[in-house]
Amino acid sequence: MTPGQAFGQHVESEDERRVDDIIERMTLEEKVGQIVGIGAREDVEGTTDEIETHHLGSCHFGETPHNTPAEKAAFANEIQRAAIDASRFDVPLFVRAMAEHGHAAVAGSTVFPQQLGLAATRDPDLLERCADVAATEMRATGVQSTSSPIGDVARDQRWGRIAETFGESPFLCAELTAAMVRGYQGGTDAERENGADRVLAVTKHFPAYSEGLRGQDQAPNEVTDYTLRRVHVPPYAAGIDAGTAGIMPCYNSINGEPVHGSARFLEDLLRKDLGFDGFVLADARGAEDLHAGHAVTGSREESLWRTIRAGLDLLPFGGGEYAELIVGLVEDGELSETRIEESARRILRLKFALGLFDDPFVDVENAVETLGSEPHREVAREAARQSMTLLENDGVLPLDPNTERVFVTGPNADSLAHQHGGWGTVQDPDPLGDTVLEGIEAAVGSDTTVTYERGATLNETEDVDAAREGAADADAAIVVLGEPDYVHEFIASSEEYGLDEFPNRTQLTLPEAQRELVEAVHATGTPTIAVLVTGRVLATPWIAEHVPGVLMAYQPGSEGGAVADVLFGEYDPSGRLPISVPRSEGHVPLRFNYLPSPTADDSAFKSSYDPLYEYGHGLSYADIEYRSLELSAEDVGPDETIDVEVTLENVGDRAGTEPVELFATDVRSSRVTPVRELVAVDRVSLESGERETIAFTLTVESLGIIEDDGSRTVEPGTFEIRVDDLLESFEVTRRRPYR
Amino acid sequence: MTPGQAFGQHVESEDERRVDDIIERMTLEEKVGQIVGIGAREDVEGTTDEIETHHLGSCHFGETPHNTPAEKAAFANEIQRAAIDASRFDVPLFVRAMAEHGHAAVAGSTVFPQQLGLAATRDPDLLERCADVAATEMRATGVQSTSSPIGDVARDQRWGRIAETFGESPFLCAELTAAMVRGYQGGTDAERENGADRVLAVTKHFPAYSEGLRGQDQAPNEVTDYTLRRVHVPPYAAGIDAGTAGIMPCYNSINGEPVHGSARFLEDLLRKDLGFDGFVLADARGAEDLHAGHAVTGSREESLWRTIRAGLDLLPFGGGEYAELIVGLVEDGELSETRIEESARRILRLKFALGLFDDPFVDVENAVETLGSEPHREVAREAARQSMTLLENDGVLPLDPNTERVFVTGPNADSLAHQHGGWGTVQDPDPLGDTVLEGIEAAVGSDTTVTYERGATLNETEDVDAAREGAADADAAIVVLGEPDYVHEFIASSEEYGLDEFPNRTQLTLPEAQRELVEAVHATGTPTIAVLVTGRVLATPWIAEHVPGVLMAYQPGSEGGAVADVLFGEYDPSGRLPISVPRSEGHVPLRFNYLPSPTADDSAFKSSYDPLYEYGHGLSYADIEYRSLELSAEDVGPDETIDVEVTLENVGDRAGTEPVELFATDVRSSRVTPVRELVAVDRVSLESGERETIAFTLTVESLGIIEDDGSRTVEPGTFEIRVDDLLESFEVTRRRPYR
Repeated sequence: MTPGQAFGQHVESEDERRVDDIIERMTLEEKVGQIVGIGAREDVEGTTDEIETHHLGSCHFGETPHNTPAEKAAFANEIQRAAIDASRFDVPLFVRAMAEHGHAAVAGSTVFPQQLGLAATRDPDLLERCADVAATEMRATGVQSTSSPIGDVARDQRWGRIAETFGESPFLCAELTAAMVRGYQGGTDAERENGADRVLAVTKHFPAYSEGLRGQDQAPNEVTDYTLRRVHVPPYAAGIDAGTAGIMPCYNSINGEPVHGSARFLEDLLRKDLGFDGFVLADARGAEDLHAGHAVTGSREESLWRTIRAGLDLLPFGGGEYAELIVGLVEDGELSETRIEESARRILRLKFALGLFDDPFVDVENAVETLGSEPHREVAREAARQSMTLLENDGVLPLDPNTERVFVTGPNADSLAHQHGGWGTVQDPDPLGDTVLEGIEAAVGSDTTVTYERGATLNETEDVDAAREGAADADAAIVVLGEPDYVHEFIASSEEYGLDEFPNRTQLTLPEAQRELVEAVHATGTPTIAVLVTGRVLATPWIAEHVPGVLMAYQPGSEGGAVADVLFGEYDPSGRLPISVPRSEGHVPLRFNYLPSPTADDSAFKSSYDPLYEYGHGLSYADIEYRSLELSAEDVGPDETIDVEVTLENVGDRAGTEPVELFATDVRSSRVTPVRELVAVDRVSLESGERETIAFTLTVESLGIIEDDGSRTVEPGTFEIRVDDLLESFEVTRRRPYR
Repeated sequence: MTPGQAFGQHVESEDERRVDDIIERMTLEEKVGQIVGIGAREDVEGTTDEIETHHLGSCHFGETPHNTPAEKAAFANEIQRAAIDASRFDVPLFVRAMAEHGHAAVAGSTVFPQQLGLAATRDPDLLERCADVAATEMRATGVQSTSSPIGDVARDQRWGRIAETFGESPFLCAELTAAMVRGYQGGTDAERENGADRVLAVTKHFPAYSEGLRGQDQAPNEVTDYTLRRVHVPPYAAGIDAGTAGIMPCYNSINGEPVHGSARFLEDLLRKDLGFDGFVLADARGAEDLHAGHAVTGSREESLWRTIRAGLDLLPFGGGEYAELIVGLVEDGELSETRIEESARRILRLKFALGLFDDPFVDVENAVETLGSEPHREVAREAARQSMTLLENDGVLPLDPNTERVFVTGPNADSLAHQHGGWGTVQDPDPLGDTVLEGIEAAVGSDTTVTYERGATLNETEDVDAAREGAADADAAIVVLGEPDYVHEFIASSEEYGLDEFPNRTQLTLPEAQRELVEAVHATGTPTIAVLVTGRVLATPWIAEHVPGVLMAYQPGSEGGAVADVLFGEYDPSGRLPISVPRSEGHVPLRFNYLPSPTADDSAFKSSYDPLYEYGHGLSYADIEYRSLELSAEDVGPDETIDVEVTLENVGDRAGTEPVELFATDVRSSRVTPVRELVAVDRVSLESGERETIAFTLTVESLGIIEDDGSRTVEPGTFEIRVDDLLESFEVTRRRPYR
């Protein structure tokens, strides 16, 4: 067992023999059943009937009405029982859920910040703990697979699913993707004691969902091979290296080929180049889209034919109809039975590795106790707190908890649904969590009066005058603005805004109603703080210029109280932007790691990189200074490593935490390389007066040029290493001129 | 001699023997001199000295102060004399100019609309005549090569050089690129009587300048091989097929490779795949940028080494310094002398083909008479007139020439520099041409009073009250808005706007001052017409909604009076948008020929294609209806052709002209193909009551899928042909299911 082997595909020989035996004895229909799933329906009997009739091997837990822990667990048991009873080999079901940031479609679950917020923490260990908690809550309800993490690198700030990414640095996305995989799966097969309390990570959406033209969801991706290898592949390679059980392809077409139907991506790139040996899970409409979206096939049947030939192992929806079509394709000789067996084997191995053949059932009582437990919520609170990114502070923050009168307003001040983010328990009228408002009420002293007036929905003003008066009468005003929760192209929680507005808005500004509200509050002269609860980053130049305190809260999940932890100074804000914030829609896309070009930084023109807030921006209440940056050598060989030491000192009065980010530049290379690229991250917490040196070791090879085949070439010459404003460089032994 | 052979590279055997002879006897320095040029300088003697000292073989006429026809012609003769006298073989100079839309850097020349306006005419024959006139004016001043046409397909409406393209249809760009090449060069070598009155076309900027990220000039291009072949290559292939003498690479990097240093693009794609055998001309800073812009080389010397190895034949600037560096590279063994000879041969052949060895000099008197002559201006007026695109008309247009009081306002009403567009005679205080205002004054009847108040510069309001009063007192108000002339990333004519504003503005809206002006005029209630004089298209949703008459005038060149021809009804507007106009910056890029994708046209969301004005939009004063669309067959083979007949009828009272555009859709194909693609264009002029049928013949192969190697594959299935709202389809014989 080595790292890089996918979860459970190298099961013990005894289990492998049992897989062989089952496959050998299965009918074609039974084999096909293993590679086709069904979406859980309101109609329990209908669901179990279809599972029984078509030997279906998996079920996706969507946002069905069975959404309490007890209902989910009982339902899981019921369908397991049906599947096992109907199987000649007692094959259990494989149950899946979205669960991107906690088991969030189940009422009462612990909901973590969406990935963009998690990335702001720069803390892989914390993310591993979050994923571990999420896995525990999933297994408690009978779910063994999440559709997480998302390896997609944010590319266009307009894209609605930016919230679900780890931001714009390929390195950071790779590090955090691997951490989530480890958290869900409990390490590699070798490290893991058993799989019975683990869930399968499905790293998605391979290889490049995020390049959709003009940020439109699922639009064709326009990427060169170089960008694909340099930007998009690293997180998937890291997920595979960490042992991700599954990979989900993206909906998009790349180079004219829809990835769900492309052997170039699913066979050549994924299996051959990246060595992935786990299971490839179709996205919900991934097969259907081949005819309905991309028009590369003429029917559902042809789409199934194409996607299975391309390498799909599991079609999670479609149920009996898909199963019958696939059986027909094999009977007609259009698909080989061997191809079906190959995928069915992968699924059966997973069922052994997850311990499902031993114990497929869950304890309903345990589910009720486990979901949203206090220790779990503590981890989520820690994650939300660490994600908070202070964008502006002229000294107005932190607020004194004993401020006499605090006024709270804005559409996102008291909305659990909006702060939960996508894929949540939005049908639940009373989801778990503390809103921002509740957090503020809990954080203030006993003599403080907190008043609240919503003032505006997301798109419509309400009683702005009341908000103005509330602000005028207060000593501090907190305006909580932003966007709703959303689930890629469709809206889940609310009809208060039009379907064509969020998240596929062509605008990145706040809607006019919210701008009017914050301007009215600010005009009262009361010290004003804007809190942005939003999945995407927003272009807010007016707020940046006028409002003295601005906090980016992302979509923090169930623990909106974390906002108050930071506003009232209980916690030093240590979140840093994992993505650049543009000044306007006209500035996108923009990225810190852009490729240099003739006019990119010409002083006569605006730079290619002219953001409202840079990648990595984030203020602190502490005063931590970078004292030195030291490299272990001036000259190194291309196969060697170089040690980097960074010394920081807390010169202020209060303790604080600084995420330390190391950037590298290959000054001159035969291929165009980024002006800087993130190559290492760490976090350091310092008490007042404390000084610490942290060390990194970089392999020179990892700094080299990425070739079209994914390999690295280190060319001799100068490399620069930057941290904060410090810069040092080293040389890789120079070759003869030009060649 | 077959079409596709580059101008002059297959010279008569006698000339080829002379080329051989010269090359054989030349020193290394003399050969290098042929591939290096000098930019004409104010200092005539300095220019000739450098030519003599370094045996320089070409000179670029920039915007030097010698900018009258007489000065240019005399200067050309002077440098020719110096070059010939200094040459042991009497080798003449090769003199170049930008001259993208007329010999516009010479005062008094005829200035045609920029390419975007020319494309609005949909009239290849007219463009051929324009190029022919431009060639005549160039040769009259001793210039033998233009840096035109531009084959780049418009991709991002923000790009400052959109004005210089033929718009967003690869087919239209290809047709018009070929037409311009024919116009400059006088057809193929076989068709041409002699080259002594021709100029060389240099089709640029190969292969894809226009994909710069976020529309930024010269930024890295993010294109897949499919997009490169499907969108960008066709105009270059068409230019090569028409015999373009030269190709200029783009400044950008593609796939991490700056094109000026890339054998993949300049050797493999251009020479091997596309069969180009002409000369490759570096763009002005193309070599320098390898170190200064892209950081792929470490010095000027290394940049020259790399660009020459990649396939550059002529470095138009750099003069003696480049020549010495290149000689040194050969002497050091870094470049082979054979490589230099190969390029020098190409240049020498051209000098023979252009007749320069016979007569390198020009008649100064003839230059003065030729430039801006009445027949030339008539062609330009025709082009400007045909380009005019009527975007909105509630009946307010055409204006009655006898309208009592006409008020004209706006920053572009009386600015020849702005209307000329880029690469013009902007230093000339009194350039040739009629402004829009002058055109209006000439068009109205003798009893009409025309008053004028500028009201605003491009970025600043002036006396808006005066404009308001002027409008209130008039029977019609014409507001001429837009952008300045500009030359890709730098500004040529004016300091009234900041360098960081035009054309690399991140906004596509009109500046606030202009919006204020048009809103003030409109608010008077006087019937208002907005005229947009602009290189790029602009997002003007307010004007679209409120102003009853809107005319897109592009940058019409010297003949701004063409605006009046249309406004006052002397000419029926027959221009059609060659590019989609977005609603806002957040909507770009958008193109009529987008690739379908899952959410692209989902009714729940905004379509991928939701422009303010569609590609092809343009109103007419006439009332021409499409009567029928007929195909010659229902079933055809993949190697056959299909005939298409379109019948139109003028059902209104006045004569008019309709550009007819045929679109095709490959309904289902294994690779994602556009929702529709333009495949044929024609123009039909109809008198009142007249009916006409026009015929097209399409080769089925041209409708097939484009493969990564540029070949076409026709897959059996349904193809749709559309014209206006009519749709017919035909079948290509169906294969067996799926394979």
